Amino acid sequence: MAKKINIAFIGHGARGTGILNLLMEMDDVNIIGVCDLYDDRLAEAKKKVTDKYGKEPVATKDYHELLKLESLDAIITPSAWPAHIDICLDAMNAGIAVGTEVGGAYSINQLWELVRTQEKTGVPCMLLENCCYGKPEMAVLNMVKKGIFGELVHAEGGYRHDLRDEVALGDRNRHYRLDQYTNRNGELYPTHELGPIAKCLNINRGNRMVSLTAMASKSRGIVEWAKKNRTDDDVILNRNFNLGDVVQTMIKCAGGETILLTHDTSLPRPYSRANVLQGTKAIWSEDCNGIYIDGVSPEAHTWEKFDTVYEKYGHPLWKEFENDGVKGGHGGMDWLVLRGFIEAIENGKKPPIDVYDMASWMAITCLSEDSIALGGAPVAIPDFTNGKWINREPYDPGKYCLEEVDESFF
Amino acid sequence: MAKKINIAFIGHGARGTGILNLLMEMDDVNIIGVCDLYDDRLAEAKKKVTDKYGKEPVATKDYHELLKLESLDAIITPSAWPAHIDICLDAMNAGIAVGTEVGGAYSINQLWELVRTQEKTGVPCMLLENCCYGKPEMAVLNMVKKGIFGELVHAEGGYRHDLRDEVALGDRNRHYRLDQYTNRNGELYPTHELGPIAKCLNINRGNRMVSLTAMASKSRGIVEWAKKNRTDDDVILNRNFNLGDVVQTMIKCAGGETILLTHDTSLPRPYSRANVLQGTKAIWSEDCNGIYIDGVSPEAHTWEKFDTVYEKYGHPLWKEFENDGVKGGHGGMDWLVLRGFIEAIENGKKPPIDVYDMASWMAITCLSEDSIALGGAPVAIPDFTNGKWINREPYDPGKYCLEEVDESFF
Repeated sequence: MAKKINIAFIGHGARGTGILNLLMEMDDVNIIGVCDLYDDRLAEAKKKVTDKYGKEPVATKDYHELLKLESLDAIITPSAWPAHIDICLDAMNAGIAVGTEVGGAYSINQLWELVRTQEKTGVPCMLLENCCYGKPEMAVLNMVKKGIFGELVHAEGGYRHDLRDEVALGDRNRHYRLDQYTNRNGELYPTHELGPIAKCLNINRGNRMVSLTAMASKSRGIVEWAKKNRTDDDVILNRNFNLGDVVQTMIKCAGGETILLTHDTSLPRPYSRANVLQGTKAIWSEDCNGIYIDGVSPEAHTWEKFDTVYEKYGHPLWKEFENDGVKGGHGGMDWLVLRGFIEAIENGKKPPIDVYDMASWMAITCLSEDSIALGGAPVAIPDFTNGKWINREPYDPGKYCLEEVDESFF
Repeated sequence: MAKKINIAFIGHGARGTGILNLLMEMDDVNIIGVCDLYDDRLAEAKKKVTDKYGKEPVATKDYHELLKLESLDAIITPSAWPAHIDICLDAMNAGIAVGTEVGGAYSINQLWELVRTQEKTGVPCMLLENCCYGKPEMAVLNMVKKGIFGELVHAEGGYRHDLRDEVALGDRNRHYRLDQYTNRNGELYPTHELGPIAKCLNINRGNRMVSLTAMASKSRGIVEWAKKNRTDDDVILNRNFNLGDVVQTMIKCAGGETILLTHDTSLPRPYSRANVLQGTKAIWSEDCNGIYIDGVSPEAHTWEKFDTVYEKYGHPLWKEFENDGVKGGHGGMDWLVLRGFIEAIENGKKPPIDVYDMASWMAITCLSEDSIALGGAPVAIPDFTNGKWINREPYDPGKYCLEEVDESFF
């Protein structure tokens, strides 16, 4: 390997720790800077990096200090949601490639600034949406690109994850969700499900999302849970949460497709991303653990177990990954999304999830807030490409690209 | 048995034939009239009834003739969707109890007339929504009334049923769906899922549905399917269907609960009513075949198979039904809904699904059409009780009532 990628890292909470551990396993990565607002986290990260590389990283509470490091190649930031866009803007303006953890936007204006800054600077900026690299999601993407689904018509996905104990821990675990859930009412976390769906629907490359409506249920789950499990915690017990327990958002695309998103994190339930993908020739349902291909599945009107088609349609990237030994968190997808970012930088390619993807996916959060505030009124979704979606330049093919698979890379 | 119920029957298509067969198995039922617009169906129904009872029924193409029969107790009508409300109005105005098969409404006005006519005449009018008597639906209703779900927050349901061959047969099977799908775009068939949900949420008795938004995907499924399977059928191949393949409707209730409905009948898929019910203490998911009760289910964040709680929470009506031997179509629920109607008449009780339920459930169809036509705008749902929902008179308890179970009836 000719050169290692020098990375500075911002945000050493639970998620940051997991990602940093993965990066330190990569031979082509060198961590040269760490940053956190909390002393204890910062000290721990500094020690861990020093132990690994035998050299102290720059450690700072002010991430701007990291951007001045002369040998810096890239920033990776699993910081709190409200910091993501500012860090991306500052990094791009400093000429430093940046990969950010996921979240939603606070305003459409900040997304336009993100897009314009990327266009002006040409610096890579990637949303590190790990679920785009999920094993089932990539198999389905592969099937879509091979035409197995026919013409796509409808998709569903959700972040259906019981996070009551995490949110209700509140200040004790320094989690940003508490503030968000207290003050906002919308689809706060859309990208885990929307990212993979958008890639299947060619959003921003031949298609785009044009409008949405959103609706929120009442808010009961966290306080009811706290009454039983946090009887000593007045901070939670007396809190009025603005966020509805279940928020659903319906999105219409230029191609006529519909997308349903569900944010559902304050009630008891097993985890699900609740994926459904429907085309004229096939359907996938995560909750049914099933796939049905018209005229192909052995029994009419009956699910085939998803595993039975995996052998045939699993994505080459995942086949290779399984062959080499799956690494990293969340079943391997964390590793893959980080490799997608790092190898794009190494090879001077555009990142597989670009700033238009990032802006349009994150926009759902503030637009769903608008729709709910307006009693469910339809809200327009901006075209962050300013018309380029109709005839975009070709994507950069490669192992990690989330477009049609080029088998020659494997 | 003191007296048999004399029933006249309107509509002898596929569904009508099934229901008529069930009625003729009941000892307390006597069929005295039959009606259909098609000669062959009418002749067949007449023969079947004559063979059974040894006496010819009145057979007519004009249902008004049946209403003149002196000994008539009730009308049952599985006729085409557009005829349901007119038949109900004419029956009530003639003083004849009426039970109608399900469908959606065409205007809010016709529903007000239905409600006002029932109030004025006092004649029982019941929507024969069989899914309210589905085995899982009734078990869940039982759990809800026992408080197992805590406070209900969100519900989902759908009519997700691949009907492409049925719709595309079109004129050949005289099916009303072809006309409906060609001309309308909305939630055309809401009650199979909405009925059971509404009963759980106490709609029209302490709660009501206040507004909705709806969204439709493009329409591709039937024509794409016909290109392969009906290559000789120009009627289908050249048809422009107004109905989107997937239509989703989000409903907000006065109590803050949200309901998602999905109409999905034009794409390849296995059947599902896609039920989800979420409360502060439990969740049911039909597609996951699972139930999860907070702090009770054996493994945290993990589904329990629905069957494992059935022994404990199955509805007494179903336990009795299984004990006596399940009868009738659609797994038994057709039998139960018909018994619910007939026993209400026999005992002079209010029907378990009344005219307010019928009006509010059927209203979703024309209101979803309005919302889609208005680009997804929120639309108000009328209060057909004119405020009575806040303090309704008690329901008539009984075996078939869809309220809190009174064990003394079993």
